[in-house]
Amino acid sequence: MPEYTGYVGQSLEFLKSNDIVVGDSVKILSDLTYSGIVMPRYEHSDDKHIVLKLNSGYNVGLEIEKIKKVEKNKTTQKIVEKNEKIEHSQGLPKILLLSTGGTIASKIDYRTGAVTPVLTAEELNSSVPELAKIANIDAQVLFSEYSENIMPEHWLGIAKKVNEFEKSDYSGIIIAHGTDTMHYTSSFLSFALAGFPIPIVLVGSQRSSDRASSDAALNLIGATKFITESNPKGVYIVMHQDENDNTIACHLGTRVRKNHTSKRGAFQTIGDNPAFIIAENQILKNFSKDYFKINGYQPKINLDTKVALVKYHPGYDPNLLNQIIEMGFKGIIFEGTGLGHIGKTMYESVKKANEKGIFLGMTSQCIDGRVRMTVYESGRDLLDLGIIPLENMIPEVALVKAMWVFGNYQDSEEIKKIMLQNIASELTD
Amino acid sequence: MPEYTGYVGQSLEFLKSNDIVVGDSVKILSDLTYSGIVMPRYEHSDDKHIVLKLNSGYNVGLEIEKIKKVEKNKTTQKIVEKNEKIEHSQGLPKILLLSTGGTIASKIDYRTGAVTPVLTAEELNSSVPELAKIANIDAQVLFSEYSENIMPEHWLGIAKKVNEFEKSDYSGIIIAHGTDTMHYTSSFLSFALAGFPIPIVLVGSQRSSDRASSDAALNLIGATKFITESNPKGVYIVMHQDENDNTIACHLGTRVRKNHTSKRGAFQTIGDNPAFIIAENQILKNFSKDYFKINGYQPKINLDTKVALVKYHPGYDPNLLNQIIEMGFKGIIFEGTGLGHIGKTMYESVKKANEKGIFLGMTSQCIDGRVRMTVYESGRDLLDLGIIPLENMIPEVALVKAMWVFGNYQDSEEIKKIMLQNIASELTD
Repeated sequence: MPEYTGYVGQSLEFLKSNDIVVGDSVKILSDLTYSGIVMPRYEHSDDKHIVLKLNSGYNVGLEIEKIKKVEKNKTTQKIVEKNEKIEHSQGLPKILLLSTGGTIASKIDYRTGAVTPVLTAEELNSSVPELAKIANIDAQVLFSEYSENIMPEHWLGIAKKVNEFEKSDYSGIIIAHGTDTMHYTSSFLSFALAGFPIPIVLVGSQRSSDRASSDAALNLIGATKFITESNPKGVYIVMHQDENDNTIACHLGTRVRKNHTSKRGAFQTIGDNPAFIIAENQILKNFSKDYFKINGYQPKINLDTKVALVKYHPGYDPNLLNQIIEMGFKGIIFEGTGLGHIGKTMYESVKKANEKGIFLGMTSQCIDGRVRMTVYESGRDLLDLGIIPLENMIPEVALVKAMWVFGNYQDSEEIKKIMLQNIASELTD
Repeated sequence: MPEYTGYVGQSLEFLKSNDIVVGDSVKILSDLTYSGIVMPRYEHSDDKHIVLKLNSGYNVGLEIEKIKKVEKNKTTQKIVEKNEKIEHSQGLPKILLLSTGGTIASKIDYRTGAVTPVLTAEELNSSVPELAKIANIDAQVLFSEYSENIMPEHWLGIAKKVNEFEKSDYSGIIIAHGTDTMHYTSSFLSFALAGFPIPIVLVGSQRSSDRASSDAALNLIGATKFITESNPKGVYIVMHQDENDNTIACHLGTRVRKNHTSKRGAFQTIGDNPAFIIAENQILKNFSKDYFKINGYQPKINLDTKVALVKYHPGYDPNLLNQIIEMGFKGIIFEGTGLGHIGKTMYESVKKANEKGIFLGMTSQCIDGRVRMTVYESGRDLLDLGIIPLENMIPEVALVKAMWVFGNYQDSEEIKKIMLQNIASELTD
């Protein structure tokens, strides 16, 4: 049965009239001559293009109307799995690539047309031939999960694996990761592996490999260049800076957020420019401080998930907060409004939480800017009720930090102290 | 007892050595000559400036080091309350100013140095003399609450009051409102008063009146100009566009968010430029569609707060969702990750919620961008579990819309339909 996965309307007609199916090797004359393999498309793709995987490994979308000539190669090659071991070159720096899954490590399911996370770290490496010219990359698969299914237990798994390489000859560690919760993972690694001697760089992609516009290769190359050329300690997220392919942004792992559902430049450093910009021939440095604010390497790879994130809004039912208190949560991170406020209707419940010894931290749902609870009477009331203002910590980062703190510290005064201590640039001026 | 509220260090020394207290009328020679009344400062202000309320009504911060000469007016005027009725000018458009409280309607408490919401709408009007040249403004106080204490009942109160003026000779209605939850209120008014015949403009300020940099006056003037010169139907939020005073932004009330805790340009239109920019002598129009997508004026001023906002994160305890189900919530708005995902650990609880007939809507914690749940298997699983993708609706707006929908509709199919129907530009291309 011929395969046309994802092709509809004009593009389906085009394939049929040229006797071409998905997987065929073709030569197409358009503005240039393209040789490659016809790739499947998504269910909801337009019908104006066909997508070709070029021999270089890149995908390109070709507009049907501009195609002048199509030649089918006589010996039709099916898409081959590239599992071969990459040759290492002498003298190049060594990098460890750990794969956890996500779009960056995805292949198309030919049956459903859907994207599923099955590409191995080795395949990921070999699918971007440029990498071998910059570094000798060893690849390992940790697991294969989209990041909406990455749980705190996975954070522990990643941290323990990375910790094994404290004393190694790697220049840095790249972690291929789904983008949905990449910033939660980068936060956890920042606290759990504070002071780790070589850079830890999380990299993902917003567009899967059946799209002509996949950002996977450039993000991986950017991460590799960042490690080999810049190499500062810390945990970073490396992704496209915007929609164009010229600049890759390198964000501090505790100051970054996925701020768009689909754009390639979805990740943004909150309240500042990205720490580094990786351009064609140079790395622009916007961050010149130490990422880690503690001395030496002090791994603390534990956590406790009994922390709740409470995003306040008008009409928030205080009984919901009462339930959280009853359920035995040890900490509550509020996403308050503005400078760090919640309505008076919440005060009774907050008082109860405080009396139970629950840690109460305040962040802002504005996301950018600093909470400041001394300006208005609401803020002062909340300070009196025992809520700790968490400066300009991003709500998600405060949540992850609290999980980490509760896994590693018991004393309530120490917990408060550590929550406000700048460990991994989670607090900035 | 002499008053020096908020002055410390150098600035306190300066006042004492010149025999000046807060409330004194002075003439100060610096780069220019300033005449005005010495204002109190905040507890945490720097000690390098003194703040003067000029006779024009504006505040100015004067650097002590640059002050060449200080003269105290012999007849010390205490700050007077301006309660006098403003004279109306013939031929100017009429605007109704409703005050609900917030920083924009605040005065300094001389005892504590704190800002409290007590300024009346009449005082607000008379404190900005420019307004009387643009429009004849009638002022009413609805209540006096900071917006972290504005509850859904207040939304109803505002909507009912505005509804009284459906058939009036006002060109528009300005609502002075605290900034913390102003975007929640603008969303509710957009749905409850869909089709209202004259513009409803919410205006606030980020800096209270004891600061030299208060943005209250310019935002009020901007709102007034917007109504008198542009005058499109709809619900808008008018605030500074950025830190400078040259441009005031006018945002669609369902597409805006407070994205910074303290900046004057804290409000941002999500995923687009502001609908209008109010500059010195012109209004730039970026939005040319109808704000309301329904015909005629169809007020529906009811709501039901039994809707929960669930912001998913790794480690989110599904038992918390179970509690929400048990507590009888009618709707749950998820703030999922990325394109609209939550982890597999949540599926059992989501299934339970769906079986109970609870409305389940998906938005993204990325805030910008569209949810799209057909791309990855997680999304498709969640669609199968009955979750409705809410396009690019902002999470907070989806929450308010659901509260409004549950207050006005009973049938579950109709509820789903209305949640996805574009009523007040809450969905954009």
